[in-house]
Amino acid sequence: MSKYFTNASPNNSNSSQVGASSAHAPRLTENKEQFFKHQQQNSETKRKQQNKVYIYREALLLIFIMRLNLKVVLIALIVAVVITLGAYMRSPDYSHDLVRHLDRRLFRTGSSESQPTGAHPLYAAPLQDIECNINREYSIHCKRDEEANEVYVPFSFLRNYFDVSGAVTTSGTEDNKVPTFNWMHSNSKVNYPKGKYDPHGVFTYFENYNVEVRDRVKCISAVEGVPVSTQWEKRGYFYPTQIAQFALAHYSKNLTEPEPRVHILEDADGNQMEWTTPKNSNMTRIWHHKFNTNVVQYETAIGYESAISINVNQTIDLVLCVDLLLVTNSSSLMVTVQNRDTRHIYNLHYIPADLLLSVQDSNIYYGLGSAALNRWRHITRDLHIDLQKGIVMGDKHSPLKMRRSDLEVLAIAFLGIGFYDNVTLSTSDHLAHFYDAAEWFVNNQDAKTGGWLNPVRRNLNGFAELRPGWISAMGQGHAISVLARAYWHSGGDARYLKAAVLGLKPYHVFSHKEGGVLAQFMDKYYWYEEYPTTPPSLVLNGFIYSLLGLYDLNSTAPSSIARDAGKLFTQGMYSLKKMLPLYDTGSGSIYDLRHLSLSGVSVAPNLARWDYHATHVNQLLLLATIDRDPLIAQTAERWKGYMFGKRAKHN
Amino acid sequence: MSKYFTNASPNNSNSSQVGASSAHAPRLTENKEQFFKHQQQNSETKRKQQNKVYIYREALLLIFIMRLNLKVVLIALIVAVVITLGAYMRSPDYSHDLVRHLDRRLFRTGSSESQPTGAHPLYAAPLQDIECNINREYSIHCKRDEEANEVYVPFSFLRNYFDVSGAVTTSGTEDNKVPTFNWMHSNSKVNYPKGKYDPHGVFTYFENYNVEVRDRVKCISAVEGVPVSTQWEKRGYFYPTQIAQFALAHYSKNLTEPEPRVHILEDADGNQMEWTTPKNSNMTRIWHHKFNTNVVQYETAIGYESAISINVNQTIDLVLCVDLLLVTNSSSLMVTVQNRDTRHIYNLHYIPADLLLSVQDSNIYYGLGSAALNRWRHITRDLHIDLQKGIVMGDKHSPLKMRRSDLEVLAIAFLGIGFYDNVTLSTSDHLAHFYDAAEWFVNNQDAKTGGWLNPVRRNLNGFAELRPGWISAMGQGHAISVLARAYWHSGGDARYLKAAVLGLKPYHVFSHKEGGVLAQFMDKYYWYEEYPTTPPSLVLNGFIYSLLGLYDLNSTAPSSIARDAGKLFTQGMYSLKKMLPLYDTGSGSIYDLRHLSLSGVSVAPNLARWDYHATHVNQLLLLATIDRDPLIAQTAERWKGYMFGKRAKHN
Repeated sequence: MSKYFTNASPNNSNSSQVGASSAHAPRLTENKEQFFKHQQQNSETKRKQQNKVYIYREALLLIFIMRLNLKVVLIALIVAVVITLGAYMRSPDYSHDLVRHLDRRLFRTGSSESQPTGAHPLYAAPLQDIECNINREYSIHCKRDEEANEVYVPFSFLRNYFDVSGAVTTSGTEDNKVPTFNWMHSNSKVNYPKGKYDPHGVFTYFENYNVEVRDRVKCISAVEGVPVSTQWEKRGYFYPTQIAQFALAHYSKNLTEPEPRVHILEDADGNQMEWTTPKNSNMTRIWHHKFNTNVVQYETAIGYESAISINVNQTIDLVLCVDLLLVTNSSSLMVTVQNRDTRHIYNLHYIPADLLLSVQDSNIYYGLGSAALNRWRHITRDLHIDLQKGIVMGDKHSPLKMRRSDLEVLAIAFLGIGFYDNVTLSTSDHLAHFYDAAEWFVNNQDAKTGGWLNPVRRNLNGFAELRPGWISAMGQGHAISVLARAYWHSGGDARYLKAAVLGLKPYHVFSHKEGGVLAQFMDKYYWYEEYPTTPPSLVLNGFIYSLLGLYDLNSTAPSSIARDAGKLFTQGMYSLKKMLPLYDTGSGSIYDLRHLSLSGVSVAPNLARWDYHATHVNQLLLLATIDRDPLIAQTAERWKGYMFGKRAKHN
Repeated sequence: MSKYFTNASPNNSNSSQVGASSAHAPRLTENKEQFFKHQQQNSETKRKQQNKVYIYREALLLIFIMRLNLKVVLIALIVAVVITLGAYMRSPDYSHDLVRHLDRRLFRTGSSESQPTGAHPLYAAPLQDIECNINREYSIHCKRDEEANEVYVPFSFLRNYFDVSGAVTTSGTEDNKVPTFNWMHSNSKVNYPKGKYDPHGVFTYFENYNVEVRDRVKCISAVEGVPVSTQWEKRGYFYPTQIAQFALAHYSKNLTEPEPRVHILEDADGNQMEWTTPKNSNMTRIWHHKFNTNVVQYETAIGYESAISINVNQTIDLVLCVDLLLVTNSSSLMVTVQNRDTRHIYNLHYIPADLLLSVQDSNIYYGLGSAALNRWRHITRDLHIDLQKGIVMGDKHSPLKMRRSDLEVLAIAFLGIGFYDNVTLSTSDHLAHFYDAAEWFVNNQDAKTGGWLNPVRRNLNGFAELRPGWISAMGQGHAISVLARAYWHSGGDARYLKAAVLGLKPYHVFSHKEGGVLAQFMDKYYWYEEYPTTPPSLVLNGFIYSLLGLYDLNSTAPSSIARDAGKLFTQGMYSLKKMLPLYDTGSGSIYDLRHLSLSGVSVAPNLARWDYHATHVNQLLLLATIDRDPLIAQTAERWKGYMFGKRAKHN
């Protein structure tokens, strides 16, 4: 019996030996002794095969002796079969051969019946482990399909070795889930322009930007309504480039997002709320002669419990606007919000003090500036952002990440002595943010240089440090893009235009001089420097943004004023077309040209990581809509291909 | 019986049914029970133990029924087991479950006992098929290890996608062969200089070159003793660069290879052979007054059978040298060689005719030129090369590739009327080849331009075609390297020096003018063009070779003559250091700068394939031994890293 099974293994030649040995047929008692002994040797080694031979011999021997005692024989036979089977099934030889045999059969069946690949984990392929030696430097574990002459390399290795991405996704029905591995050469997104770039419309693809959400934005200043950066200095500073991106993102969102929903809570005229007015506090609606409208005048005792307040229980509409005049230092606006997930309650305080952001337990303070006292201010606050930045400030190590949808505004309250009007909660107020930033550029321009100064040190590897006060062509260009739009959108507010035109000045001054961003490559091509380093660093994406500012102003300003911007733009585009190939590696792009500028030492090209490469591609695709030189579109197309694993040919 | 087997699968619920029936089984003697119990404990997994328990219960049940008819039961039992087992093993359920079960077990055992990975193909891993979608463009088949959260990608895909190499090799003993997969980012070889580059020594790494073996070498001209190229024109032409490489390779081999073995067969003086002299033919050794030595004078009747000949039966020593003067057109030297593998016999004929190479069946004709008549010529022929090129010429479609070791020289014969002397067979005669080529450069220089003209059209993609007669800075540099060595090695033969110095002339003439190879990049850096295109193509490796020629001459010529070469070298090295970063992609190098030169269209960088990249690396490593500017060595080091998968960092 056991023979049949044993013979399933082609390597086993027991069958013939069984016949031969049975001739010696020893006595049964001896048999039994041997038999039991054998059981104890139930080990996994080679000895096993031999053991099996003995077992079969025993079985035949028993049958030969059957005439003596059938009962005994039967029992012995059964026992022998059972034991042998049990033993054999544990033997690695058995398993290997059988598995290999069956595996092959399965594999063939699977393919011949065109079994869907990846359909069922049961269709195991007969792969072997193989060590893979990488460039004679180190080893990784691979798999080998010897029959198909194929080696399989683990993606976890490839991911780092080649800087590619990939993930398994599942599709199909609940019962028949089909996993697919998605190999993405680059995870970054290509944006295709919907039409010719409009200098009064969406700025490039900035409708996708959420500047204030970024970790390197400390908070939105309640004095200015613009972001405060911590990118290169932890204490926080105004970074013109970031402020402009904040403005351009909101300007673009205003054009692409649906009209916001606006809840007017209190305007002291048509919309009035029932404000809770504790004892010793009071509020009245009075006529404001200058505004030609009613406003709320209030005065409260000291302590939160004395505040004038309303409950609002508002979700989603989390942008608070209010016109506010505070009379005393201790006056404030307080907004109570709750995390509906954790039930935790926070108070956002807007106070007339010279602090940026301060947190005490669940109380988050934003300073409106001491100059805010006794002046009407229109403030626009994204309560979600204000709360989130406060939470991060309160617990830097493990700040809670709060979802916008978790947030509920419970109450709005006023304390101290003051006036307010037009209290609204909206889904968004992009234009308010945009104009806050535009005002910032009008009010914070360096009159002498025309620059918006960067008040921090900046260290580019290999270059001398830029000292605080440096000017960025990207910042200038972005600011000009903001101001050109503000000029246009406001219907011609000359303050914006004046600031934008003054902002051109650094484009004419060499970057090694104070107040300049202009560089020259190979004494030939003019370049506007995102970072005015010596020697030039020639950052590509910043240069293109600086060109867009020029284009925007040239397209917006009256022609006599526009001329200078137009000339600078043309000069820059000429350089761009000549120098673009310098940034092409044949499989990606280079971030800047420091490897060409820095001398005396061999510097590797500073490759653009995929998201910067995507920025290059997106910028070129956009430029191709305003400059028909095929060189731009061709480069964009080729560089786009690099994101999908295409490479330039080799010779 | 099949049930027992089924129980080996953990997913099968038969076991409980079996167990239920066993409740009715009577008890066996305690002794036996103990025995069975013991068996149970011998199992590996818990489930197995249970399975066996059921098996034993069945056995007991059968024994209980035994009293009815033992013989019948016995037979029935055996038949049942056989049939069921057979049937069950063919069932797919059985196979799947069992395979999976065993696979897992194997896998775990393999790892827990730290089985060497890749040690044995039987250690199959439980991988699933998964479709891999590449950049949303197409799909390939991958493998997945769900448990380990790993996806395995087939190397056949990676090879093309990333241009990498790999192969399985086997090590270990005969019994335990361990396969390893060797991942090679680049198959090309890095050469490390053994010391400072010696302008009189080995030329770069050319001791590894075998120019004449290349397919694009049609043959070695018997007139000049230099290779004839078919690279850009099939009819064959003299390509100065190739001729110089032929010379430099032989010069270098002469320095690195062991002294050749030289068999002097006949010098008409101390070494004399018994020449077979048929009737109507004769030979005599006569005194040559000019040479001050004896030479052989011969005259034969028409027909091969009348030739003066010797049998030599020589293998390995396959370079034939002979001093020869043929008097009539129909005179010739004939060498009979045999392919010892195929037993095929060939005749190599060297005839005083203006043909390059002609083949009729097994007769291969090399023309010595009609000008060879009545002039002493020292000819050096590599019989293996001459035969091989003839075979290729005779059967272009499937030429026999002949190994050098298969070749045997059977006989050497002279026909017609003539003189000969110093007949030798050697393992090599590198210097003879070197001087043949050096002579070619002396005799084939354009007196007006100083150039060695390329007599073929050359088309570089994107550039206007170069018309025949163009000059290559690489060809000039190589030729100068040859001539400088010939000047030095010959002990100061002024002809070589004169030709070398005249060869500098094109370095001073702009490449868009006739006879020039000089270009300027960005109106700034001077460059010596391998291909004098308009606009400049700026091929890197050719430029560096052109510099080495200058270095060689500067180091060899008397200082007054060397000055010009030195200045040109310094000028070129300055450009090289400034421009080297332009060729750096961060993961490889670029062959030329056509992507920067060609205007009006966006051209991808012309990436250097791995062997050209290796050439760049090897050239830089060499330059680093003669120019201590760290920039050279640093670049060499970084570029070397690219061959091992290293990449420049991204920002």
